[in-house]
Amino acid sequence: MTDVLSRRDLDFLLYEWLDVVSLTSRERFAEHSKNTFDAVLDLSADIAHKHFAPHNKKSDATEPTMRPDGSVEMISDIKSALDIYRAAGLLAGQFDESIGGMQLPTTVSRAAMAWFQAANASTSSYPFLTIANANLISTYGTEQQIDDYVRPMIEGRYFGTMCLSETQAGSSLADITTRAVKQDDGQYRITGTKMWISAGDHELTENIVHLVLAKVPGGGSGVNGISLFIVPKFLAGPDGNVGARNDVTLTGLNHKMGFRGTTNTLLAFGDGTHTPEGSAGAIGFLVGEENRGLSYMFHMMNEARIGVGFVATSLGYVGYLKSVEYAKARTQGRRLGAKDPASPPVALIEHADVRRMLLAQKSYVEGAMALGLYCSLLVDEQDSAVSDEDAANATLLLDVLTPIAKSWPSQWCLEANNLAIQVHGGYGYTRDYDVEQYYRDNRLNLIHEGTQGIQGLDLLGRKVTMQNGAGLKLLDSKIAATIERAQAGGTDAALHAVQLERVWTRIVDVTSQLWEPGDPALALANSTVYLEAVGHTVIAWMWLEQVIAAERKSGDFYDGKRHAARYFFTYELPKVGPQVDLLASRDRTTLDVNPAWF
Amino acid sequence: MTDVLSRRDLDFLLYEWLDVVSLTSRERFAEHSKNTFDAVLDLSADIAHKHFAPHNKKSDATEPTMRPDGSVEMISDIKSALDIYRAAGLLAGQFDESIGGMQLPTTVSRAAMAWFQAANASTSSYPFLTIANANLISTYGTEQQIDDYVRPMIEGRYFGTMCLSETQAGSSLADITTRAVKQDDGQYRITGTKMWISAGDHELTENIVHLVLAKVPGGGSGVNGISLFIVPKFLAGPDGNVGARNDVTLTGLNHKMGFRGTTNTLLAFGDGTHTPEGSAGAIGFLVGEENRGLSYMFHMMNEARIGVGFVATSLGYVGYLKSVEYAKARTQGRRLGAKDPASPPVALIEHADVRRMLLAQKSYVEGAMALGLYCSLLVDEQDSAVSDEDAANATLLLDVLTPIAKSWPSQWCLEANNLAIQVHGGYGYTRDYDVEQYYRDNRLNLIHEGTQGIQGLDLLGRKVTMQNGAGLKLLDSKIAATIERAQAGGTDAALHAVQLERVWTRIVDVTSQLWEPGDPALALANSTVYLEAVGHTVIAWMWLEQVIAAERKSGDFYDGKRHAARYFFTYELPKVGPQVDLLASRDRTTLDVNPAWF
Repeated sequence: MTDVLSRRDLDFLLYEWLDVVSLTSRERFAEHSKNTFDAVLDLSADIAHKHFAPHNKKSDATEPTMRPDGSVEMISDIKSALDIYRAAGLLAGQFDESIGGMQLPTTVSRAAMAWFQAANASTSSYPFLTIANANLISTYGTEQQIDDYVRPMIEGRYFGTMCLSETQAGSSLADITTRAVKQDDGQYRITGTKMWISAGDHELTENIVHLVLAKVPGGGSGVNGISLFIVPKFLAGPDGNVGARNDVTLTGLNHKMGFRGTTNTLLAFGDGTHTPEGSAGAIGFLVGEENRGLSYMFHMMNEARIGVGFVATSLGYVGYLKSVEYAKARTQGRRLGAKDPASPPVALIEHADVRRMLLAQKSYVEGAMALGLYCSLLVDEQDSAVSDEDAANATLLLDVLTPIAKSWPSQWCLEANNLAIQVHGGYGYTRDYDVEQYYRDNRLNLIHEGTQGIQGLDLLGRKVTMQNGAGLKLLDSKIAATIERAQAGGTDAALHAVQLERVWTRIVDVTSQLWEPGDPALALANSTVYLEAVGHTVIAWMWLEQVIAAERKSGDFYDGKRHAARYFFTYELPKVGPQVDLLASRDRTTLDVNPAWF
Repeated sequence: MTDVLSRRDLDFLLYEWLDVVSLTSRERFAEHSKNTFDAVLDLSADIAHKHFAPHNKKSDATEPTMRPDGSVEMISDIKSALDIYRAAGLLAGQFDESIGGMQLPTTVSRAAMAWFQAANASTSSYPFLTIANANLISTYGTEQQIDDYVRPMIEGRYFGTMCLSETQAGSSLADITTRAVKQDDGQYRITGTKMWISAGDHELTENIVHLVLAKVPGGGSGVNGISLFIVPKFLAGPDGNVGARNDVTLTGLNHKMGFRGTTNTLLAFGDGTHTPEGSAGAIGFLVGEENRGLSYMFHMMNEARIGVGFVATSLGYVGYLKSVEYAKARTQGRRLGAKDPASPPVALIEHADVRRMLLAQKSYVEGAMALGLYCSLLVDEQDSAVSDEDAANATLLLDVLTPIAKSWPSQWCLEANNLAIQVHGGYGYTRDYDVEQYYRDNRLNLIHEGTQGIQGLDLLGRKVTMQNGAGLKLLDSKIAATIERAQAGGTDAALHAVQLERVWTRIVDVTSQLWEPGDPALALANSTVYLEAVGHTVIAWMWLEQVIAAERKSGDFYDGKRHAARYFFTYELPKVGPQVDLLASRDRTTLDVNPAWF
């Protein structure tokens, strides 16, 4: 079986580039060492290959269904795999030891999770959401809530979800209508329906912990009136086991193009199905304070956005590796100028256009993996920085990079999967090979946890302008530092640095030009184009970082890194030029449209 | 139900732009009039909406299967729809009256077919292949072959296929191993297997006419040893009805990501399944002369390539129309600067980024439709030109444009479907809506009838160099004529003309630069990038043509045309700049790769 990720590349990124081992000199990670990091990565790769990859196609072909009694039926392989995952303690990853965690660096636990995402994106969703959910409650919840919900999630006895969207409110959370009414005993009663809830129902665990956005009557308007509640499928019983059923009801499953092994649900809260005494609402427990729910939820959302970037990257990565393997094994045609039909055909990889498609994939997936791990290291910096200023800077930079870490892999690692199909030719279009499923699975990532359009508005409308542009300035200083190091380095690095500096300077300039007229509609008219331009430039920066880390090292692996960087700087970064031209012109094409023209 | 195509747009393209009615002044089309053209288009739209669209999702969800007896089972809706199509006489379209055809202009019959391709790409494949097959035999076959096979195909009693690929030979037809051995009676016996044969088996018709590439022992080597044979599923009987079963056996069905309603088959010729007396080979009838098979097959292939462009365009078009409808009906969020959550949400189409996605789709699908119809008019010119020189010029220009007419819609109308999903948000990713299927169906078009890479090699390696560049010069003169007319026109047209001239001049220059060193491997190292650059430029030309045709006309339809052209010239054509830069640098990145670096 082909490996689903490259351990060699992860070692390069984690140890040779990001020097993750240096984190062990900090108190938070002092119990760890390269050995414990390696052990987690080895274990993850092993379980992912042995227990996650084998049922990936099967769970695509046999998607979950609703039984007549309203419960979910799914192939048993999913539970078997997750039982092994849970038994290995892998849900405990980055959590504090004080609540049962392993206190691993996020950088390492994200890399470990990537094996599962590459092997089986759908099955990996269950622990992925659980970790993000537990992380939120452990940050904002009470001790009781941590004991009741976080500990069982870290143990893998409960899984978690995030319940934001409703049928009429997806991107626009201001319009949610789910209500929460406070009772005399301090609990809340939740009524409403939630749409698109991944992992919203199943029998993989004893219990499911829903984190639900709802409005308390009399609260603020729009997003300022949103509160956050823990709404478990089963209430906590007196003996530590699960108690009575809460009134959360599966009312439908969505049937998706891909990602089919993850149940995606329509849930009714408080419709009376599970409360024989009548529909008083599902019981919910407030997280933090009323009306501040969206800010808490963004803690989980931001984590999930980087996680979505990792899923997209991992799907791109496994498709890349499989198309490399195919291109080396499959023969077809002859070299140009060697057309003698009696000569044996050559491997696909001998053809220039196939090489282009492999280089493109390599540059996308390894560039995206670098960005994901870089962002993860910022999380570790937040959690363990030696000064408050360092921690605040890490938060600021992570804020700016999050929309890119979410959107860029979603767009370009999907394109990697598209190219992986193309390398396979007709075979790639069939379900006998794996790549068409990756392409279908990966298409989701441009949509959930904030669409591409939402990420563009977030980056240009919020992240680069907040604190008087402090985030953009910080990113600028980081990129400038890389360019400076590169200019002192080898030829490749120095050449790339000149190109990157030119493009990045234009990005910085155009950012202020866009906001100059003080007209948000005009500034944001092409925010998605801006997102794409910044994204490509940031990935070029990630490639320059990798070239520097590979300097004075010889061998195929390092030559491959240098060549993929050459590809990216030659074929990809120049695409940013016309995008910046468009932005600089403050073009009004998208504004000056009459809907009747369509 | 949403229309699957825009009749208003077809009327504009056919009558206001291409002036198809003027063809009726030519002898070949003298029996026709705008009325007969309209009647065919109306009839096609009606049957497509009533009988093709309704089972599109069903045939995706219920793909054909093999029965234990080796026959194909498929939903009955496909046959019902095709029976109505056949009864309406629509297979007769462009064929000569002398053999039972309607002698319609190809431009009109392609536009008519597009309704079926948009409504149900899979079901439309059966007549699509049949028409191309009948066209080949009517051109190169004997009178007997025309009587035996073409007439029943035009009547819809038989359907046809093209059998080129084998499991080991897809893009490289030189490596086919299917053999044809001549018998004393002049017939041939065919043995071998063919892969990826669309419509290769079914019970939709009395008989199936396979056009099979095979090698006659002792023939030339490589592609020069390929001959073409008619191999029917049932031999012609003495009474005009079908006779004995020929030894053509379905040995497997391919399971695809999309296009599922079209059976895609592995066929064995002459494996003895249907010849109790032993495996002497399937009976085949030579078309034309031995060893010239590939040149005949390219007659069908070129037609099929333009047809693939139309399928891709039609799938893009229907997705565009459905996402426009959705964007007008679905409300979400508020305008920028009008964030009062108490105000009612606005339609999606009010958001700039949604408009960008709709404009992009519009510019892709209407641009592609224009190119497809322009190429079809060149076919009519071939068939009816007033001078041999005009006919030869039409052939030459069509030769150059064919790889673009195939590849550009396959790439960009797939991107249109990608954007159609994005406009729908989470709903677009579900099978409850139609757009995800279009995206899956459309992904095939980058692969079959010559992959994107093959089209690039064809364009840069053959089409622009043949006859000392005569094809490119002819295209150049056509584009120059449009630019000249545009410069005499309105502001939009004149501005676009300046931009197009600049880009096109660079394309022409870079074409000769690439071939200057006389190193084919270097010239063709980025032939796919060349294909994309020329493609975008040709579509810009098509948009400039449309702007000229819309000049001095007012109303939403024409304003929409002008705005889509503005979008294409502002957002799309500039993408060609970096591509031409790359080509001009004669970059060696794809050549200087060591496979061990991946």
